[in-house]
Amino acid sequence: MALSDLVSVERNEEGIAAVLGILKLQLDERFQTGQAIREQHAHTTTYIPTQAPDGVAFCETTEEVQAVVRACAAHHVPVIAFGVGTSLEGHVNAPGGGISVDLSRMNRILAVNAEDLDCRIEPGVTREQLNQYLRDTGLFFPIDPGANATLGGMAATRASGTNAVRYGTMRENVLSLTAVMADGEAVTTGKRARKSSAGYDLTRLLVGSEGTLGIITELTLKLQGIPQAISGGVCPFPTLEAASRAVIQTIQMGIPVARIELVNALQMRAMKAYSKLDYPESPCLFLEFHGSDAGVAEQAETFGMIAEENGGGPFLWTTVAEERTKLWKARHDAYWASLTLRPGAKGLSTDVCVPISRLAECVAATEADIAEMGLIAPIVGHAGDGNFHVLALMNPNDAGEVALVERFVARLNVRAIAMEGTCTGEHGIGQGKAGFLRAEHGRGVDVMRQIKHALDPLNIMNPGKILPASANPPH
Amino acid sequence: MALSDLVSVERNEEGIAAVLGILKLQLDERFQTGQAIREQHAHTTTYIPTQAPDGVAFCETTEEVQAVVRACAAHHVPVIAFGVGTSLEGHVNAPGGGISVDLSRMNRILAVNAEDLDCRIEPGVTREQLNQYLRDTGLFFPIDPGANATLGGMAATRASGTNAVRYGTMRENVLSLTAVMADGEAVTTGKRARKSSAGYDLTRLLVGSEGTLGIITELTLKLQGIPQAISGGVCPFPTLEAASRAVIQTIQMGIPVARIELVNALQMRAMKAYSKLDYPESPCLFLEFHGSDAGVAEQAETFGMIAEENGGGPFLWTTVAEERTKLWKARHDAYWASLTLRPGAKGLSTDVCVPISRLAECVAATEADIAEMGLIAPIVGHAGDGNFHVLALMNPNDAGEVALVERFVARLNVRAIAMEGTCTGEHGIGQGKAGFLRAEHGRGVDVMRQIKHALDPLNIMNPGKILPASANPPH
Repeated sequence: MALSDLVSVERNEEGIAAVLGILKLQLDERFQTGQAIREQHAHTTTYIPTQAPDGVAFCETTEEVQAVVRACAAHHVPVIAFGVGTSLEGHVNAPGGGISVDLSRMNRILAVNAEDLDCRIEPGVTREQLNQYLRDTGLFFPIDPGANATLGGMAATRASGTNAVRYGTMRENVLSLTAVMADGEAVTTGKRARKSSAGYDLTRLLVGSEGTLGIITELTLKLQGIPQAISGGVCPFPTLEAASRAVIQTIQMGIPVARIELVNALQMRAMKAYSKLDYPESPCLFLEFHGSDAGVAEQAETFGMIAEENGGGPFLWTTVAEERTKLWKARHDAYWASLTLRPGAKGLSTDVCVPISRLAECVAATEADIAEMGLIAPIVGHAGDGNFHVLALMNPNDAGEVALVERFVARLNVRAIAMEGTCTGEHGIGQGKAGFLRAEHGRGVDVMRQIKHALDPLNIMNPGKILPASANPPH
Repeated sequence: MALSDLVSVERNEEGIAAVLGILKLQLDERFQTGQAIREQHAHTTTYIPTQAPDGVAFCETTEEVQAVVRACAAHHVPVIAFGVGTSLEGHVNAPGGGISVDLSRMNRILAVNAEDLDCRIEPGVTREQLNQYLRDTGLFFPIDPGANATLGGMAATRASGTNAVRYGTMRENVLSLTAVMADGEAVTTGKRARKSSAGYDLTRLLVGSEGTLGIITELTLKLQGIPQAISGGVCPFPTLEAASRAVIQTIQMGIPVARIELVNALQMRAMKAYSKLDYPESPCLFLEFHGSDAGVAEQAETFGMIAEENGGGPFLWTTVAEERTKLWKARHDAYWASLTLRPGAKGLSTDVCVPISRLAECVAATEADIAEMGLIAPIVGHAGDGNFHVLALMNPNDAGEVALVERFVARLNVRAIAMEGTCTGEHGIGQGKAGFLRAEHGRGVDVMRQIKHALDPLNIMNPGKILPASANPPH
């Protein structure tokens, strides 16, 4: 993606000035326009340039979000939802200025229904906060994207992470939500039944819509019982192909693996040095199993046999929490370990997802591309889903390097789509991947535009995100 | 629902005449207008009146469906998708006439990707046909709504059934689909990656849209590995509450139960007489567990303990296929057994779904309502999801009885919604439940209308379904 590919949004200076005045009156100290705060509320996690909003509204209720959206709608001014800003594709940038709605103060846990394994929360609750709160109930919320993101942001980007292979993504784990739509009305998309055939699936339409259709102000989430036992371990393989075959057989056999992470040789090298552990420098799988005491032992043993049949092993595993933590430590430290491969560099994390039969081929082709382009870029993947991340180490101030990494990411996206995959498994489109949506979805993009135009005719909800620039206006 | 509540759709006689001529020329013998065939393609499964289309197009390709939709769009004529007609809420009726698109001849299995646990099929493939085809691959498609429905129809109504508690509904099991939209364009909603964060979730928007947004002409479905072992059995309980507590504890403990069916006392009485088996006449749970040999035994044993703690039991279970079939036979014959409770009557099947903490209360209140209204209406439920069915036995030619059952269904829907549930867990809205959509979704109905209007501005795609009649046109 060249920076020139970012979808541009025209600034409406007059409208912005009017809204700044209105919100200062309405929210007083909770409306901020200082440069530092504005820049903190723009994109800050990658080389995508920071495009700050004109003001930040720290809302505390759905009604306040409605008031902000109504003011912005009246004056045709962009509204951008903000959680804690950990998104990776420019989701929170304000290319046409406008108002950032900071939801981090809406962080109350409203209800935990233990018998129904669900809870109702405000969008600013983070996943760590929720799991801390749930600790004594025997329940937990499984989705873990790495960062301690807000659950509203995770829903908006359809986030997932290491244990999606067992528990699904935000798509499967949001039971219903409340969103403030572009006209300022609040809509609740469902009740608490585990399933429903009643009408269009507005929950799934809003999950993953990245704030472009509405701002999520409440969520009802599915919870899981904390497993009785957990086993976990690490298993080296001679090649990516061998590791990948073991993953496929594990899934085919119906082993309910909770995590199955692929780490490539370069990443293992970095981890070995960083964590000072005796790992091999070949592709490895890190695994975790959840279930009964007997179940997690059986799962681990069965996987060990699959690994051996594929030339892998030894599979070192344990059910003892401290030992498991030690075995997994390197995986948890992967990001920090990676940075040591090129001290001073910044890591650009990108993700794609392919059918698991194509995973080894896609990772291998990507490794070849990295070598050919002279990049340093380790790979870790959520192998059970065919989802993997490349962390390209770069100097973001070197325009040539930025351009090189952009070419690399573009080729990666095109490669994944050509293998019947997607240009993003869990990061979202934002600004960074808007240029690839047409290649992936074809005429589906026009249907997305029709929906966007119907629900947000003024294009005030997080404009410039998801939908690529188009010569033709939506009809 | 009174019959007067059916959403009316005005007939466009001139347009219909034009389209009849066009399609006869285009499809020749594959376009039929005889009364018998037309009536077979309308709703025939309940007392909702049969509203026949004006012609039936037996399409064989996506391109043919596109041609039919384009002809209908050009002349503002309704198009109604048809699989095998097993839906229960009037989905296939033609209240304003128009063309039924019969997809049963589009029944090819296009690809099975065993390594990726997915397959690509045409919409007329039935679930039994697919599982027959998959038999030698070690894979199966889990969703079983009872009827041997087409998978296109199952996707369109967001169907599920007994094992949704483990494997999810059509919502979770459609990876992507191709649909012919109201303008005749074919849109494919995704590729084969297990997860994606790329843009709006058009797959989930079309799943459950009942042909009102597009006609599904191809599906990519997730498959499952056939479990190594299955155990199953039956367990009586003294009360609905006790059974329900056992269900809740089973789910909370994370036992991956594959089926957990609640059968009420009246239904047990009918089954006992019909199947000539020694069942108690008290609420029972029928269970099935999938996993490894050791796993399914452990799951059954753990459930047995939970049942005992709740005053239930004995839990008779087995891993031997023939014995399991015998234990489950009564559950499989439940429908036929029910009919013996009132020979000559017709059964009206309706469904609702509530949070499982409210299941016992909702079933008990429904039983009380049945007694008070003097109905004969046994109950079976997919207890793990909080979903249950009532089969009201009635004489559909007795207007007074029909009115009574309509009142009963209305009260059931309102009760489920008041308990934070839904007026339909798996049957869909169609015509029969359109009157309850507003009570369940509030302003969400307006958002649904906006989407419907944006994607089908002429209202030709299965008009009169899902969305309730409105004094105000969609804006």
